[in-house]
Amino acid sequence: MLRSHTCGELRPGDVGNSVTLSGWVQKSRDLGGMTFIDLRDRYGITQLVFNMDVNASLCEKARKLGREFVISVSGNIVERSNKNTDLPTGDIELIVEQLTVLNKSNTPPFTIEDETDGGDDLRMKYRYMDLRRAPLKSNIELRHRVLQETRKYLDSEGFLEIETPVLIKSTPEGARDFVVPSRMNPNQFYALPQSPQTFKQLLMVSGFDKYFQIVRCFRDEDLRADRQPEFTQIDCEMSFVEREDVLSTFEGLIKHIIKTVQGHDLPEFPIMTYADAVASYGTDKPDTRFEMKFVELNASTQGQGFNVFDGAEIVVGICAKGAAEYSRKQLDALTDFVKRPQIGAKGLVYLKYNQDGTTKSSVDKFYGDDARMAICKAMNAEPGDLVLIMSGDKAQARNAMSALRLEVGEALGLRDKSIYAPLWVVDFPLLEWDEETKRFHAMHHPFTSPNPGDADKLQSDPGAVKANAYDMVINGVELGGGSIRIHQRKMQEQMFDALGFTKEEAEAQFGFLLGAFEYGAPPHGGIAFGFDRLVALIGGSETIRDYIAFPKNNSGRDVMLDAPSEISTEQLKELGINLP
Amino acid sequence: MLRSHTCGELRPGDVGNSVTLSGWVQKSRDLGGMTFIDLRDRYGITQLVFNMDVNASLCEKARKLGREFVISVSGNIVERSNKNTDLPTGDIELIVEQLTVLNKSNTPPFTIEDETDGGDDLRMKYRYMDLRRAPLKSNIELRHRVLQETRKYLDSEGFLEIETPVLIKSTPEGARDFVVPSRMNPNQFYALPQSPQTFKQLLMVSGFDKYFQIVRCFRDEDLRADRQPEFTQIDCEMSFVEREDVLSTFEGLIKHIIKTVQGHDLPEFPIMTYADAVASYGTDKPDTRFEMKFVELNASTQGQGFNVFDGAEIVVGICAKGAAEYSRKQLDALTDFVKRPQIGAKGLVYLKYNQDGTTKSSVDKFYGDDARMAICKAMNAEPGDLVLIMSGDKAQARNAMSALRLEVGEALGLRDKSIYAPLWVVDFPLLEWDEETKRFHAMHHPFTSPNPGDADKLQSDPGAVKANAYDMVINGVELGGGSIRIHQRKMQEQMFDALGFTKEEAEAQFGFLLGAFEYGAPPHGGIAFGFDRLVALIGGSETIRDYIAFPKNNSGRDVMLDAPSEISTEQLKELGINLP
Repeated sequence: MLRSHTCGELRPGDVGNSVTLSGWVQKSRDLGGMTFIDLRDRYGITQLVFNMDVNASLCEKARKLGREFVISVSGNIVERSNKNTDLPTGDIELIVEQLTVLNKSNTPPFTIEDETDGGDDLRMKYRYMDLRRAPLKSNIELRHRVLQETRKYLDSEGFLEIETPVLIKSTPEGARDFVVPSRMNPNQFYALPQSPQTFKQLLMVSGFDKYFQIVRCFRDEDLRADRQPEFTQIDCEMSFVEREDVLSTFEGLIKHIIKTVQGHDLPEFPIMTYADAVASYGTDKPDTRFEMKFVELNASTQGQGFNVFDGAEIVVGICAKGAAEYSRKQLDALTDFVKRPQIGAKGLVYLKYNQDGTTKSSVDKFYGDDARMAICKAMNAEPGDLVLIMSGDKAQARNAMSALRLEVGEALGLRDKSIYAPLWVVDFPLLEWDEETKRFHAMHHPFTSPNPGDADKLQSDPGAVKANAYDMVINGVELGGGSIRIHQRKMQEQMFDALGFTKEEAEAQFGFLLGAFEYGAPPHGGIAFGFDRLVALIGGSETIRDYIAFPKNNSGRDVMLDAPSEISTEQLKELGINLP
Repeated sequence: MLRSHTCGELRPGDVGNSVTLSGWVQKSRDLGGMTFIDLRDRYGITQLVFNMDVNASLCEKARKLGREFVISVSGNIVERSNKNTDLPTGDIELIVEQLTVLNKSNTPPFTIEDETDGGDDLRMKYRYMDLRRAPLKSNIELRHRVLQETRKYLDSEGFLEIETPVLIKSTPEGARDFVVPSRMNPNQFYALPQSPQTFKQLLMVSGFDKYFQIVRCFRDEDLRADRQPEFTQIDCEMSFVEREDVLSTFEGLIKHIIKTVQGHDLPEFPIMTYADAVASYGTDKPDTRFEMKFVELNASTQGQGFNVFDGAEIVVGICAKGAAEYSRKQLDALTDFVKRPQIGAKGLVYLKYNQDGTTKSSVDKFYGDDARMAICKAMNAEPGDLVLIMSGDKAQARNAMSALRLEVGEALGLRDKSIYAPLWVVDFPLLEWDEETKRFHAMHHPFTSPNPGDADKLQSDPGAVKANAYDMVINGVELGGGSIRIHQRKMQEQMFDALGFTKEEAEAQFGFLLGAFEYGAPPHGGIAFGFDRLVALIGGSETIRDYIAFPKNNSGRDVMLDAPSEISTEQLKELGINLP
């Protein structure tokens, strides 16, 4: 080893010892006859000391070291006179007797500090240097820890980690597949898995009643901010289970992770129906760190001459505790917020319940004191609160109000990153009607079973069928979702039929699974978690890219590698592929 | 849960308890008024009992169950009168009171027993049923265990598990890449990684001084038996290390795995040079479970009138202890073995050192008693031994003798699967001359550094440079290999130059790595293990396919999925790809 210790471990107890350290020059300071260098490695920073009076040539050599040079130094540990309490090694320093330059460095294109001066593009191009910065480094360390604890828990619960293939068959249902031309099978293609869904179901048919895998998945979608063409999932499946078994097992997983990685004990996860989530929060992934639930105000507001509300399918309000003193400017900003094209509301009505007991709204013309008080009462508002009201058709008004609720919650400091508010959302609709294609789509995926009792309606009233599916939501982030699966050929065929597959299409794409259901498929269900998102949530960030060592940009490019790139005509020829 | 216990856990202490089990009907026997069913799940087999006298309709129902039906049963545990000592649950049985058929099964296309009547193709098509058989099931369980222990060890040694991308850049050096057309970047392709080699080196440049990943890799090679287009590697890299640091760390890994998974303590791994391995065993991956080392017999055999030996570059012998009594037929079989086209020897000379002290050889005409005795002496043979001799040019004779040595070792029972004989092979040549292309190839890969001291010869005498590389070999299987890497731009450029890259080619393919070496790259080295092969070795088999849940066949096809397959013209159009 080119070191006896790391740069993070030396303490006063090491004083007097001779050590060798290796690392990067973080910072260098010449003070009169002395040169001080902060030497950095993965574990920390140790101060090196060179003294002109003691060894001039060594000190001269040290003064020539640039930022990010890689060096190895040997010498003795002494106690520092001016201790640095910000550093774990701040009580000691290393009096250097030997210095070896292991590698030079050009001047880095941006500063390797917690806050850097490098722009996004530059840091992506030199990702290997960006990863040296402490915030990114600790993200990667956090990810490692979560990986290990995930497996530790699942292993201890009897799950088997089983790797499934990456070169599989293209099944155009769902998102777009990435495909891989097969040289050995001309004109044929593999696909990269969007998830190992069918494999894990086959593993249940094989009898491996508890499976997991932390697995790369691929979707060739048009990228939005913070979506990656390749992403990591914790993928799990169990046999002989009912919904509650899956929920308690994976509630246990997330509790274990948060406990071991962050020391937090999570409470029991409440279960909320999809209908309740939508009615109370306007979304199937509510941020329940704060209340501010929706209240339907149709009865309190309609029929009083205000056309906007009178003509609306729904009038819905939220109560922002203690926000009655919002200024005109603040209220205008909220109105502007809901009018943004992403949200698309036409306007926002406010109603202040002032501390002095008076009320004031933006629609006083239509609602007198009593009517305003009645609304306050319906909203359970107290003096000092601000009521915000929107209207429209249900889907659109709830959607807009959901965005507003988060915005107001944020402004009021109610979305504390150190708090976890988990819940399960259940009883989703099995199918969603798509007006454009005039057919049903599976809300989760075509392998999700109907709720027990709803199966009969699959043919008679498919839109009314509830799914035996569940999402885990924490702080408004959908961390994972799953379902009890269909395990019988007949029901799976009915499902494909409801989704508009012909018999032939179903057989061509999923014949292997339909076949497997005829050879002793057990009842089974599972779940998959977005691993990148889970780690980002624990890390307190919403940017998953900061938790991936080598992410791609929003055009799906790796700008460091410059990939994708053109390939040689020889490669194309071998693959039997022509480009236009 | 649709069970209270598994089929593997009930014991006499459970007698009198009411339990629910779920599983598959393994076997059913009707004996007079009784029906016995072996119920199987992942954990074992439990005997179910149905009694016509007690509950005729239930017993009738049980008699209709076919093999591989999935059922759930409830009832009481009783002690068996005729205990089955072959089964861990053989002391008890379950008197069934309730029976639910969870799913039916068609008659399986082959028997789900340890020894099955299904052929390879049928079992691959119905892989999900083949995986129910105990031998395959325990292979997958073994693989799980090795996965967990690998990570446990590396985590405890301070390694960080870091995931690297699967969609990367095509670099045609080495084996053929699988490529992935990019829809968003027309005419451009990603490649799937043959290994994360450059990424792990970049992670060292980032300062993550200990990295590992258990990672899928891809090579589009013409498949031989037991090669898969996708395979799993334990991929590792460390900074600030010298060769011995890497060897001791990963010797530790393999010892930990074998110890925890199999209870074996491995001895220290001897280190053998490539030159010694080739001279003594004719291969760089010697099976050292048995001696039978090569002895060069040029001095003892040449110049005595036997033209075949006289004209040979090398005459080499092995001594098969105690095999002097091999029959003519056995000796002929060995001659046939070395004459097979895969080995290609012209013939084989034998020399028996009989128990009575006499000698007899196939070339007595040229070698009299004294000459034969001299050969025996050179071979260190004793009465009862058989000496086998081949000749030719060095590479070919050693190659053939290496195959013969394994064959004879196998016949003599010297290749015991319960014994582990590990070693490190070091000091490989850095470069191999390829007569066909008239250029050097990297024996490991282009990132391997020369042995310290040999670097100067990289330009003056490239063929003489030894690599700072190492392979781990156990029982004749190369489990893994690695090297101390080049970490300086200048030397990496010299290496690319020696390999015949132009400056432009080197820059286009590996510019990002050359660039990274200019920003503070630390000295580093690493290793990668073939994970499929490691598990197969521990499992005592040479067929890695039996240790992969869903392998591909020798044409790279997944016959269960029927992949690869054609994709839709719409998909092709979106990708901008034309087929001939």
